[in-house]
Amino acid sequence: MSYELGVLLYEGKAKQIYGVRDHENLVAQKFKDSLTAFNAQKKDEVSGKGQTNFEIATKIFKYLESKNVDTHFVKKLPEACWITKKLDMIPLEVVVRNVLAGSTAKKFGREEGEILEKPLTEFFYKDDDLGDPFVSDEQALFLKAAKDLDELHQLKKLALVINRNLIDFFSAIDITLVDFKLEFGRNKEGKIILGDEISPDSCRLWDKTSREKLDKDRFRRDLGPVLEGYKEVLSRIEKHWSHL
Amino acid sequence: MSYELGVLLYEGKAKQIYGVRDHENLVAQKFKDSLTAFNAQKKDEVSGKGQTNFEIATKIFKYLESKNVDTHFVKKLPEACWITKKLDMIPLEVVVRNVLAGSTAKKFGREEGEILEKPLTEFFYKDDDLGDPFVSDEQALFLKAAKDLDELHQLKKLALVINRNLIDFFSAIDITLVDFKLEFGRNKEGKIILGDEISPDSCRLWDKTSREKLDKDRFRRDLGPVLEGYKEVLSRIEKHWSHL
Repeated sequence: MSYELGVLLYEGKAKQIYGVRDHENLVAQKFKDSLTAFNAQKKDEVSGKGQTNFEIATKIFKYLESKNVDTHFVKKLPEACWITKKLDMIPLEVVVRNVLAGSTAKKFGREEGEILEKPLTEFFYKDDDLGDPFVSDEQALFLKAAKDLDELHQLKKLALVINRNLIDFFSAIDITLVDFKLEFGRNKEGKIILGDEISPDSCRLWDKTSREKLDKDRFRRDLGPVLEGYKEVLSRIEKHWSHL
Repeated sequence: MSYELGVLLYEGKAKQIYGVRDHENLVAQKFKDSLTAFNAQKKDEVSGKGQTNFEIATKIFKYLESKNVDTHFVKKLPEACWITKKLDMIPLEVVVRNVLAGSTAKKFGREEGEILEKPLTEFFYKDDDLGDPFVSDEQALFLKAAKDLDELHQLKKLALVINRNLIDFFSAIDITLVDFKLEFGRNKEGKIILGDEISPDSCRLWDKTSREKLDKDRFRRDLGPVLEGYKEVLSRIEKHWSHL
């Protein structure tokens, strides 16, 4: 089936969302080359970043689909563009941590690299003006970010299922999945499914042996060429997960 | 029974804790005149503040005891000093909000003064070096601040019972209980009971009609003489709750 892009519906920090002609339940998502950090106080353009993330995210979403995780992924178009199901997005970033890093390690006064006995899940309320604040379950409900406590529990449960699968996915290519961020939405039947993307923009990925950071922390902390890290991830995925 | 103070066990920002001779399960708590805010970045001494808070807190704890809330309160000594049960303190500040104010209103992008449909409870991990960070239930458990999820739920339940009683207590003297902070500990039988103090240092208290702030926000935000607000609260309590 071929798809014709419609009007630009929304432009975010890392993606443009277009309508799809004659498919009201689909959208097209173009991956941008922009990089932002610290609530967009730090910005850059890295040519090729969008395409690299697009290839990585496609592999990951296909892998998750093969593990019976429902995602918005429908079809890969050329030029860093996905056709996805149109979702009514839940305004929460769902973060899963397997290892403490970054501001969270600092918040708890712990060393970066501490392995957690069991993964931590966290919610951040998606609102650029408010700086995407960390919220408790109760606060998320007060903000009407989710319908009820059951829905919040469902988000955490889905995130932990995805975590178990992603740990395997990255472990096979000698990468430690330190933490990552997910976004979910409801499809037209009201079912909660995985949206957004999973890529080195939204994960912390460390080489298992050298502990080299292969993710957006390269950009956040000026740790060397960003794209090199992202391309290393893609190259390992393409070698090991070529059947996806 | 008379009590003889032992050695200084601990000095906090607002209280000194002494042992009590021949009573290993009791401590003496002296209320200090110090005022601190913003993780002790702002400090002052207000002569008479300790005594005023001591009188207010005593009335409140006696009132709560009369409502079957277990507290650490044992006996009032002269000179701003309490005899209390010695507790194994739980390192969480339990905050209850009935009305949005201060940094929380800002965090949510809401106006100060928004009345909450139902009270919000929050946990802050008590650690001066970390700046007492706001934590989710899961994070509180990761930090081993409480035994298990049941214990966290028990803390919230106790806090909400105290809230209902305190709303009545303050409403009777034309004061809106905006929000407040509680600390709990385990007594020697392992039962969780209310510790610390409840005073204008740990509550936001607004005059119902004028909405004048009668609490520590006077100090935080330089809203006028601090002690005047605290004394107004005490004077209303002593008039209405004289039987306590």
